[in-house]
Amino acid sequence: MLARHPDRFRVAVLTARRSAEELRRQETEFSPRRVVLADPDGAAPGAEIPGTWETGRDALLSAAEDPEVDVVVNALVGFAGLEPTLRALAAGKRVALANKESLVAGGSLVRQAMEEGGGELVPVDSEHSAILQCMNGAPRSVVERLVLTASGGPFRGWPASRLQSVGPEAALSHPTWDMGAKISIDSASLANKALEVIEAHVLYRMPFDRIGTVVHPQSIVHSFVEFVDGSVMAQLGFPTMEIPILYALSWPDRIADPELRTFDPVRSSPLTFEEIDHEAFPLFGVGVAAGRSGGVAPAVFNAANEVAVQAFLGGRLDFPGLARVAEFTLERLAGSTAESVEDLVAVDTEARGVAAGRIERGVSPSVPGGES
Amino acid sequence: MLARHPDRFRVAVLTARRSAEELRRQETEFSPRRVVLADPDGAAPGAEIPGTWETGRDALLSAAEDPEVDVVVNALVGFAGLEPTLRALAAGKRVALANKESLVAGGSLVRQAMEEGGGELVPVDSEHSAILQCMNGAPRSVVERLVLTASGGPFRGWPASRLQSVGPEAALSHPTWDMGAKISIDSASLANKALEVIEAHVLYRMPFDRIGTVVHPQSIVHSFVEFVDGSVMAQLGFPTMEIPILYALSWPDRIADPELRTFDPVRSSPLTFEEIDHEAFPLFGVGVAAGRSGGVAPAVFNAANEVAVQAFLGGRLDFPGLARVAEFTLERLAGSTAESVEDLVAVDTEARGVAAGRIERGVSPSVPGGES
Repeated sequence: MLARHPDRFRVAVLTARRSAEELRRQETEFSPRRVVLADPDGAAPGAEIPGTWETGRDALLSAAEDPEVDVVVNALVGFAGLEPTLRALAAGKRVALANKESLVAGGSLVRQAMEEGGGELVPVDSEHSAILQCMNGAPRSVVERLVLTASGGPFRGWPASRLQSVGPEAALSHPTWDMGAKISIDSASLANKALEVIEAHVLYRMPFDRIGTVVHPQSIVHSFVEFVDGSVMAQLGFPTMEIPILYALSWPDRIADPELRTFDPVRSSPLTFEEIDHEAFPLFGVGVAAGRSGGVAPAVFNAANEVAVQAFLGGRLDFPGLARVAEFTLERLAGSTAESVEDLVAVDTEARGVAAGRIERGVSPSVPGGES
Repeated sequence: MLARHPDRFRVAVLTARRSAEELRRQETEFSPRRVVLADPDGAAPGAEIPGTWETGRDALLSAAEDPEVDVVVNALVGFAGLEPTLRALAAGKRVALANKESLVAGGSLVRQAMEEGGGELVPVDSEHSAILQCMNGAPRSVVERLVLTASGGPFRGWPASRLQSVGPEAALSHPTWDMGAKISIDSASLANKALEVIEAHVLYRMPFDRIGTVVHPQSIVHSFVEFVDGSVMAQLGFPTMEIPILYALSWPDRIADPELRTFDPVRSSPLTFEEIDHEAFPLFGVGVAAGRSGGVAPAVFNAANEVAVQAFLGGRLDFPGLARVAEFTLERLAGSTAESVEDLVAVDTEARGVAAGRIERGVSPSVPGGES
């Protein structure tokens, strides 16, 4: 998409975690001044790593505050995205944020970095981009309620009993969005939607009881904002991340892109909406409750969930276990606090350890939380 | 609704055409300084008309420019609404416009009055209110397309053949909106939607090929705006005119009204969209073509349609005749022009005469336009 707008954007820095080959391809396409591979040891065996590239986590963090960069697109996966976000905001940059874990785990730190450094945060998540577009500068006092839409994932409509035995492959086949493994599992478990509710709370400073969620299997309406006068705004479009990415870069302006103009209400019909099935998807409620608890609970939820998702992908945890691991870890770390990013990293590490230990000991489906 | 916001609005002037009893009731409720009954001769026999009331069309026009009034809500029916709109705009007032015929017939005069007098026009029509909310101050350069929604009226899905014999009663029973007789018939014939397309063209200065229409039977989505970056905004709500009326009064702000907050996506599900059936509803195409022709054609279309609707309501014209009368009248007056409101009134009068004559002579279904 950026290649279609060379008059508006120049790629100054390119980074990747391990995907050396894709990074190489993009380097050829965009000719950035600087290329960073954060985790060269994790790259595919035999992958070529040019001597001009910088490598390692410190190089990644330095890239986030590169003085020639105006906009940092943070699409890192998981808690690892927090520090680059903090660095970029502290350096006064716009962060186009696709890493919701930053906000969920480190909401107050992120707000603090933004206020101190003068940076700004623009969401790339389709739901939060929709909310930004629906609010469009309106004061929070006229906003009654945010309603996030959820595709419902591949197991929408399944009873809880049938979800006992689903494996990673079924969970990875998302009906409407083409995404990475972590977010696909989060979407199947609705953990993703809980993270997004917390993200909306942090981004728009809305109380949790004024953030609703509705299942919308077609993923055409990306979210609603209800105003105090009964009017409701929605942002729609066929499910492509290119629209919210472009908007995060151009906001508050819009940049013409004929290739993205593919919406057709007749072709999108019907648009349906249904309630979340909390019995089948308890992880959603666990996550939102963590958000309501505040403090480090969202970070603990996120850490436990990241560990649980990896275990599920590796066949070491069943699907209902995702919720049980998160609940168990939240209970264990209920008294923890964090004042700094270092504290938060420590809490994150501890939560991962608790979650991993729980998974290793095996999660008993019959006595949830019983053998701790 | 106004009664719920005594801190924000005071009713200074009340007007009605003939409904003396309702006017009396509202006078008691709102204690206005001035009350005008425009057509006392048309009031119900024996209706009480207090001596404190002003009567007649001149009083109505004078009320539209009353110096103590900030906002004129113009909900007159038909072409008769044009002059009050022009007077109010010339006097620098906000006109909350529910009289789309003003704009359709006198678009350029309305724009001129607005520019000269400093008045502003805020639509009350739910579709145009939706567009205003979706655009929300965005420059026209980032707007790709407006898409108006249409309920489709009571005959949605009916084949053209079945529409030959429908009478006024069937046409008056609108599925989603509770409205007056004229607009109900216009909604059944889709003339209303053609008028709204022209209204959108005038209000938002959008070319006709960038104004689409889609049938949406639930009347929950009130219209869409597609932007140049592929993003689509929509405004939604349960079908009540109170939301767009309140917005027209409060724009660009919003006023809290808990009674209007009734939207529920699950209860609204499913939302469906379909194409207009041009064969069954030819009047829509006739009206939009009149809009494209420009000049006095929209005024002629509107006049012919007003006469045809009255004939249909009176049992003197069949349903397909609505389109034939409009088409015939447009052909007859194809060469007319108008430079002033007086010219336009003359064109309107002539068009009404042509349409009425055509109806009196009988409209032959087999040879449309043939016996002229």
